[in-house]
Amino acid sequence: MRVRKRKGAEEHLENNPHYVILNPEEAKGRWREVFGNDNPIHIEVGSGKGAFITGMALQNPDINYIGIDIQVSVLSYALDKVLDSQAPNVRLLLVDGSDLTNYFADGEIDLMYLNFSDPWPKKRHEKRRLTYKTFLDTYRQILPEQGEIHFKTDNRGLFEYSLASFSQYGMILKQVWLDLHASDFEGNVMTEYEEKFSQKGQVIYRVEAQFQ
Amino acid sequence: MRVRKRKGAEEHLENNPHYVILNPEEAKGRWREVFGNDNPIHIEVGSGKGAFITGMALQNPDINYIGIDIQVSVLSYALDKVLDSQAPNVRLLLVDGSDLTNYFADGEIDLMYLNFSDPWPKKRHEKRRLTYKTFLDTYRQILPEQGEIHFKTDNRGLFEYSLASFSQYGMILKQVWLDLHASDFEGNVMTEYEEKFSQKGQVIYRVEAQFQ
Repeated sequence: MRVRKRKGAEEHLENNPHYVILNPEEAKGRWREVFGNDNPIHIEVGSGKGAFITGMALQNPDINYIGIDIQVSVLSYALDKVLDSQAPNVRLLLVDGSDLTNYFADGEIDLMYLNFSDPWPKKRHEKRRLTYKTFLDTYRQILPEQGEIHFKTDNRGLFEYSLASFSQYGMILKQVWLDLHASDFEGNVMTEYEEKFSQKGQVIYRVEAQFQ
Repeated sequence: MRVRKRKGAEEHLENNPHYVILNPEEAKGRWREVFGNDNPIHIEVGSGKGAFITGMALQNPDINYIGIDIQVSVLSYALDKVLDSQAPNVRLLLVDGSDLTNYFADGEIDLMYLNFSDPWPKKRHEKRRLTYKTFLDTYRQILPEQGEIHFKTDNRGLFEYSLASFSQYGMILKQVWLDLHASDFEGNVMTEYEEKFSQKGQVIYRVEAQFQ
């Protein structure tokens, strides 16, 4: 997600150290301390403006959520949502998805979400897609054995690519949705992007893939 | 595919024993003799009225094709197409897809096609779907190691189910198409059903899945 640069975004993040973890290396291996409980921890890589992570946190108070994005302005909008929600079980990280092992110990994360990731449609940019095998290496490390990635997108090319990438990595596809909003899936929390594009009639794809 | 009963269909099949193999148990393990060459053998389970198998046979003269269907009238229409085409590299079988090991030796078949199989949408009919695990057991036996199934359908529910079924069986999804006709896939041979429903704007799904 790209947004216009927001004035004061950086200060906004810095002024809210309870929600925005500014030195996440120091939290590695002690995220349960950060949250103050032993609940499962779910992360969203590429959390955008935060509608999903905040909505999930409100829907599931017994799960801790961490939203991760690399863009300052985008994360500052997510912070607005988190502050509005007053959800105690959500934190935000301003880091890159390829460096996750710097911030999370092996198996520290219970479940991972990828939503509407950048499709990088050109073949020469394949390595930048968040479902490329080097990213899967990273995710596998911070997830438990048989950990899961729940991925949704409206981008057909990225979804086709990702199903094959998960499968060729040795992951099992537990369930696939080729039109999520027409299915009987319950409790779907929409991202900003999802809300906008599904209203235009765009099909939303979803998969739950599990490491072996 | 269901069609109205065709008068004389049975006699039509019996009168063309060169194309319609009437005692396929006897051909088990000696299909290369039946074709009179050592070319690869591809089969289509549920070949319907034969447009796909005949079109593939004409497109690929160095591959042998066997169309399989359980319905007499349907297979008789396929026979018409085969006779019209004069393709020397195609045969037809009037047998059930669950019994394939009776007619093919282990590893005797090089590639398998499933096209627009009956979706059996009710959960209680799951075992009848041609991508259910007991069918996969059968297919695996007659295919070589790392043998492949190429499957296409317009039925969203069946495709969602089949991707998960292949994956949970331990097969790798080599490539997935979520809108075949909008893709750059080359050499697609359409079935009768595909021609009709894609004209109505129906998306066609396709996957190439490989045993491990």
